[in-house]
Amino acid sequence: MNAPQAPLDDARLSALREAVGAAHVLHGQQLDASLQARHLRDWRGRYQGQCLAIVSPGSTEETQHIVRLCAAWGWPIVPQGGNTSLVGGSVPDGSGQQVLLHLGRLNKVRHLDAHNFTLTVEAGCTLDHTRQHAADAGMLYPLSLASGGQCTIGGTLATNAGGTQVLRYGTARELCLGLEVVTASGACWSELSGLRKNNTGYDLRDLFIGSEGTLGIITAATLKLFPAPQGCGTALLSCPDAQSAVALLSLARQTLDAGLVAFEAIESQALQLVQQHLPHMARAWPSASATTGPASPWLILMEHQGPQDQTHIDDELGRLLAHAQAKGLLTEAIMAHTVAQRQAMWQLRESIPLAEKTEGLMVKHDIGLPTSAIASWLAQCGTALRARWPDCRIVCFGHLGDGNLHYNVQPPPTLRSGPPWARFESDVNDIVFDLVQAHGGTISAEHGIGALRREALAARAPAEALPLMRAIKQALDPACLLNPGRLLA
Amino acid sequence: MNAPQAPLDDARLSALREAVGAAHVLHGQQLDASLQARHLRDWRGRYQGQCLAIVSPGSTEETQHIVRLCAAWGWPIVPQGGNTSLVGGSVPDGSGQQVLLHLGRLNKVRHLDAHNFTLTVEAGCTLDHTRQHAADAGMLYPLSLASGGQCTIGGTLATNAGGTQVLRYGTARELCLGLEVVTASGACWSELSGLRKNNTGYDLRDLFIGSEGTLGIITAATLKLFPAPQGCGTALLSCPDAQSAVALLSLARQTLDAGLVAFEAIESQALQLVQQHLPHMARAWPSASATTGPASPWLILMEHQGPQDQTHIDDELGRLLAHAQAKGLLTEAIMAHTVAQRQAMWQLRESIPLAEKTEGLMVKHDIGLPTSAIASWLAQCGTALRARWPDCRIVCFGHLGDGNLHYNVQPPPTLRSGPPWARFESDVNDIVFDLVQAHGGTISAEHGIGALRREALAARAPAEALPLMRAIKQALDPACLLNPGRLLA
Repeated sequence: MNAPQAPLDDARLSALREAVGAAHVLHGQQLDASLQARHLRDWRGRYQGQCLAIVSPGSTEETQHIVRLCAAWGWPIVPQGGNTSLVGGSVPDGSGQQVLLHLGRLNKVRHLDAHNFTLTVEAGCTLDHTRQHAADAGMLYPLSLASGGQCTIGGTLATNAGGTQVLRYGTARELCLGLEVVTASGACWSELSGLRKNNTGYDLRDLFIGSEGTLGIITAATLKLFPAPQGCGTALLSCPDAQSAVALLSLARQTLDAGLVAFEAIESQALQLVQQHLPHMARAWPSASATTGPASPWLILMEHQGPQDQTHIDDELGRLLAHAQAKGLLTEAIMAHTVAQRQAMWQLRESIPLAEKTEGLMVKHDIGLPTSAIASWLAQCGTALRARWPDCRIVCFGHLGDGNLHYNVQPPPTLRSGPPWARFESDVNDIVFDLVQAHGGTISAEHGIGALRREALAARAPAEALPLMRAIKQALDPACLLNPGRLLA
Repeated sequence: MNAPQAPLDDARLSALREAVGAAHVLHGQQLDASLQARHLRDWRGRYQGQCLAIVSPGSTEETQHIVRLCAAWGWPIVPQGGNTSLVGGSVPDGSGQQVLLHLGRLNKVRHLDAHNFTLTVEAGCTLDHTRQHAADAGMLYPLSLASGGQCTIGGTLATNAGGTQVLRYGTARELCLGLEVVTASGACWSELSGLRKNNTGYDLRDLFIGSEGTLGIITAATLKLFPAPQGCGTALLSCPDAQSAVALLSLARQTLDAGLVAFEAIESQALQLVQQHLPHMARAWPSASATTGPASPWLILMEHQGPQDQTHIDDELGRLLAHAQAKGLLTEAIMAHTVAQRQAMWQLRESIPLAEKTEGLMVKHDIGLPTSAIASWLAQCGTALRARWPDCRIVCFGHLGDGNLHYNVQPPPTLRSGPPWARFESDVNDIVFDLVQAHGGTISAEHGIGALRREALAARAPAEALPLMRAIKQALDPACLLNPGRLLA
């Protein structure tokens, strides 16, 4: 689609090295196995790319300089933060003609404004580093992801990351007040002032957030901070069915309001996987309870936080659980009485992906539904999949509180490799996505589109969405230099 | 800028009447004084427009039909909801060549989903009607504006309205999960499913929100609902200075977290105006206290809500106030003990614009600042204005909790009409806006740009913002038919 691009010759290499320093331009033989694993292979190991060079600017100005050079030479740019995309959004394609723009050196904390409850950081700061910086000032940056030690703020914003506390605090988008962005022409648009209200024209911020690096390159952001909660109450409990779990969610929202920060679901198959493969991670839920089996197929991890002290928070949570039990919405409940118990509960929840990995290949989904539609969707989808493949295994867990489920399907033993696997994956996707759409849901709740869901989006986007998106892409990146082949087909 | 447009002849009039029904196309002599006042003059009386016709579609399909006709004939369209814009954004210009598209007939409540905490309404539903519908189901739609009986959901979203509860619940943008929009070509893009997480491409929703009808016409929206709070504590208190008020805000946020729903400021001149012109509205703050004068120049209205009962909420608020008084952050405080007392406190706050109107002409501003910059900005701006016009009067009040102040300047008696007034207005704007920008603030926090702030935005937008916005406008409305002359100069 693009005009033929200029080759990486000595003159261009020199220009890149002058722009960012020779140590920060890697190419050819320098791209050893370790660098390739780190920067050119995706997190799940589905995509192995090649690149012209890995370039790591050390400032916004250097980023602009590199983008201008690439624009002049017709070089496509793939921006990369921590390379933790789950949809192949942050590695170059196999052409070897794309430049990997690694933003890890943009890792300065620029400003913490305590009275304004804001923190301005550069795009390459990791999420954990950012959270720690806020915590050191007695405050909370609430975005919470398992990959926090590696993923970067720029990446969380480019993909509008979600995680476990969206119910209370919203996604990365809702936690961002301002951005600094390098555009496709190498210009810089910056509105980092940290205002809660600002109605001066189109919402450029939210257009760049979630655009997966295809409209501009985020180089810094001003984030919302919150008071660190004083009390934290955590409980693990079992619900008789999905309908009860959703009714419990409604009751918990009514009762705790903003105090309800997490409402995570673990269906029985997901629990059994952890008990089987990582038994030391499953100790928060005694196996005697777990083996009650089909009568209690849904485990819920609920967390209640607030500015009140621990006793008060625990009392409120305890009263809610007693009330829910009296209404028949839950069958058993355990409250954490120590930090270790709380951590064990979260460990159980967070060990599911690792247990899945140990188990083997699955068709994975990151779907979102109105919470009111979840029970009906689960029933219909399970029925449809088992009718087609009686031996398939459905592993479901996720952020029930915000309607986001990870719904993974293990093939029967005969369909685990080669063309039968590919066909199984495609057929499962069709069944799952058709039912998601019929229930008003989304095929990608928090992971984004990247390379993996590009065709699915093209086939399933609502009427007029793609023409509008393409018009915007054309307007902001007419030469299609920014992360081509991602998001839009 | 546009190609010459087709005239309103009999054939075109028939086509419009066929599209929406003859009763819903008004033109020529039908546009009597009452209709002109209601639809062609803006809320503040600054702009008196003319129009080709007022057309009121009764459905999304009829809206599409009208937009297609206007697009074919080259007729510019001015969308209008409740016509409560404070920046002249919802009335046509004086050319008489624009069609006023009145959306008041799109007033159906489509669906309340209690388990999903969402409400889907059409654009022409008034804010109060929407809030009442949620309240009837025991839930809260928190957007709260003085014009709630007249303004519409479509208008609040097109302008990303703010109001008094942004501190806790965010602006209209943050309260919207999905939209239905008629585009400039008359197509319809609809994503009304009410998902908390949905990462499938560019954020079209937030691009249309706040675009003031210049990119598309919002016809319906899915809104977030919240549990109705059980307890509500309200207090009126005086702070020795702006610095103390901001420190009190930080303390209140730390102490109450999400329970702090409103933190409104009334500077002494604003209080005095109400006491002078509307004394029955000022009774919530005893005049004995008010006359302590300069020692307590800042009155704060603080509201604390939550799922706990009234006693608990009042106890928490009372402890916070005692703590703040011990720290010297406030001098006097009154807590509301009855609903009537609470209403009287809000009446005092909300009567300021009327007291100003009684007083006469002022240069009005709707600025936003990082809360950490407010005290310094107020000091510098007051000094600069009084140095130039020792007799000017500064009336300041607003949503201190989210950094949004209404900062209005009354001219000295000699500058209240004609060219001296115009010059005063322009000079005051320059001083105020220069200092706002120097402090990282915004010239329009919640009212938007409309016609009134178009030139100011053109002169003061951050680098690259206007080229990006113009590229988006060109991409989505190439013929510039949607609300031309608004937002972008």
